[in-house]
Amino acid sequence: MPDYEETGGHGGDLQAASAEFGLRPTEFCDFSSNINPLGPPPGLVEELQKNLAGDLDRYPVPQARGLRSALASFLAVPAERLLVGNGATELIHLLLLWERPQRVIIPYPTFSEYERAAKLVGAAVRRFPLPLQATSPLKEAEIKGLLTWGDLLVFCNPNNPNGFYYAPEVILEIIHEAGAKNVTVLMDESFIFFTGKPLQQAFLTRDYPHLWAVASLTKLWALPGLRLGFLAGPESKIQELTRKGDPWRVNALAQRAGLYCLNKLDYLADSLRVIQVEREYLLKNLRKIKDLKVFPGEVNFLLLRGEREGFSCEELYRFLAARGVLIRKASNFPGFDHRYFRIAVRRREENERLLKELNVFFG
Amino acid sequence: MPDYEETGGHGGDLQAASAEFGLRPTEFCDFSSNINPLGPPPGLVEELQKNLAGDLDRYPVPQARGLRSALASFLAVPAERLLVGNGATELIHLLLLWERPQRVIIPYPTFSEYERAAKLVGAAVRRFPLPLQATSPLKEAEIKGLLTWGDLLVFCNPNNPNGFYYAPEVILEIIHEAGAKNVTVLMDESFIFFTGKPLQQAFLTRDYPHLWAVASLTKLWALPGLRLGFLAGPESKIQELTRKGDPWRVNALAQRAGLYCLNKLDYLADSLRVIQVEREYLLKNLRKIKDLKVFPGEVNFLLLRGEREGFSCEELYRFLAARGVLIRKASNFPGFDHRYFRIAVRRREENERLLKELNVFFG
Repeated sequence: MPDYEETGGHGGDLQAASAEFGLRPTEFCDFSSNINPLGPPPGLVEELQKNLAGDLDRYPVPQARGLRSALASFLAVPAERLLVGNGATELIHLLLLWERPQRVIIPYPTFSEYERAAKLVGAAVRRFPLPLQATSPLKEAEIKGLLTWGDLLVFCNPNNPNGFYYAPEVILEIIHEAGAKNVTVLMDESFIFFTGKPLQQAFLTRDYPHLWAVASLTKLWALPGLRLGFLAGPESKIQELTRKGDPWRVNALAQRAGLYCLNKLDYLADSLRVIQVEREYLLKNLRKIKDLKVFPGEVNFLLLRGEREGFSCEELYRFLAARGVLIRKASNFPGFDHRYFRIAVRRREENERLLKELNVFFG
Repeated sequence: MPDYEETGGHGGDLQAASAEFGLRPTEFCDFSSNINPLGPPPGLVEELQKNLAGDLDRYPVPQARGLRSALASFLAVPAERLLVGNGATELIHLLLLWERPQRVIIPYPTFSEYERAAKLVGAAVRRFPLPLQATSPLKEAEIKGLLTWGDLLVFCNPNNPNGFYYAPEVILEIIHEAGAKNVTVLMDESFIFFTGKPLQQAFLTRDYPHLWAVASLTKLWALPGLRLGFLAGPESKIQELTRKGDPWRVNALAQRAGLYCLNKLDYLADSLRVIQVEREYLLKNLRKIKDLKVFPGEVNFLLLRGEREGFSCEELYRFLAARGVLIRKASNFPGFDHRYFRIAVRRREENERLLKELNVFFG
């Protein structure tokens, strides 16, 4: 059994699953981590293989300056406000170590790294609820009430594990109020790409002195093994982190991959189309399963809840894992119990396989 | 021209050199960065190429637990006191962000990231001199005098850029006195492997509550593009960083490479032998060059000083770079002026090429 405190209890720990269930990591059909089901863009593996020897024994380009410029164009955000990093999680931790908040306001349920990072810097944490359903209104009053207490507010949008997305205008009011109360805001927009909305409207970043936005690129381009993400923030602070921080935080292969992927716009469009079609396919068929509550997320994963008496996600997890299908137990999300689990949206044949096994389990 | 404040002014910035001198990055013979001249161990590139597709689209093993165990055996340090990281520089920055020192005592001349990291956390810095020659005694009194002022002492051993090494017994006294004065000590032992001394005697780490040791693996195995290093520290603090910090700071390829390299003991022995022979070869022949002062370092690089009137490392750098040979200008090390530069110890034919060009320049 892996040490869940060390690993954060995240999905995608195929080595641990392999040790427990006796299959090779490659033999699992992995619904436990939320990465692009199409895999990396065509040709990326070959591009990296071809350049591997040179990328290995030379230092990475400092501050990933070429990738930073290309990313700035892609996002329509000035390069001076961007810091490219070794995955979104690194940047979340970096921001908390850098800002050293003492009282952190965190949504629940949500990605567990905010709370880990808050605890690492010794901050107190208070939570506000994020609705699990798109039809439920955001409890803005509850968040605003906490602004008089906290000094950092985290907001994950679209939220993990339910995948519901709030348009920027809904959140901007909270951000403005946070600014008035000297509360820093960290928006985690790691799944924004998967909404399929035009990035320039959907991605919430402004050159406000109290606003940071972080996003993963690992999931979009299916390269979690390489680590890639970025932080957008106030220009003066980003410049300080750039001018005094680790110049080599982004390894050479991740930089090459990022530059390659940014040019694959057809692949990006294909990915979003497949995810949308497959999400609808999953939603339709999951709803047919008795004793299964489906939360209609808008990205590349879905939150589910077993309604059968005595249901436990642990039991389902073990049933599926023994058959080579991994889901994400969601019982360790604050506010959740053993009934919750999360699945990624994957390709048709994989989704069919999951549905078949779920039907066996619940049937 | 690269922005030296952003890049730290380190060696190995082949992209910038390429833009300035019109050669491809691969065409340079790079004496500016201190990596193993043998390149990565035989078979490593193929091993990574073969596994690349799978390593890309799966999450890295959390906390690099397999590599951490293997490294613990290699170093004879308990795994509970080890944190594997995305290069030594990441870990130096992490430690300063985590410990938040206010007054940092740093040797000079030395690797510039300690001071960058200190400035990033807003700490004041005072410097103590490290002798450039092996025959000069360490000015212990000067360091000890600063212990009443500071709260973090950094000690780079062997020191970069001169390569002089102090045996642990020399430094332990300072470490003990630091402990008595509540000063944390960070030993950077990134070049310890290159001394060729038995690691269990040479590598200075103890389970003291105020002692941390950081080291790069990037240089030893010639994989700076991938990033790999480790931090050894007090067990309780390492456990906290492990249990609350970024679980994926080491990318999957770096983990695979680390596990592969740890088994290549013949390659390691070959590397150390070649470096020793070539260092002696360089020392002997550099000393024949008129107007060149050679500092006898004990690792895989040498510090040099031009003695000719009007000499500037910038002029030499440009002379050599135009001929495809890169050296490290050392004028940006605190305490140094335009006369200093550093070269790596490389393979014979490369060393011959450097010597030939230096003889042309100084001849």
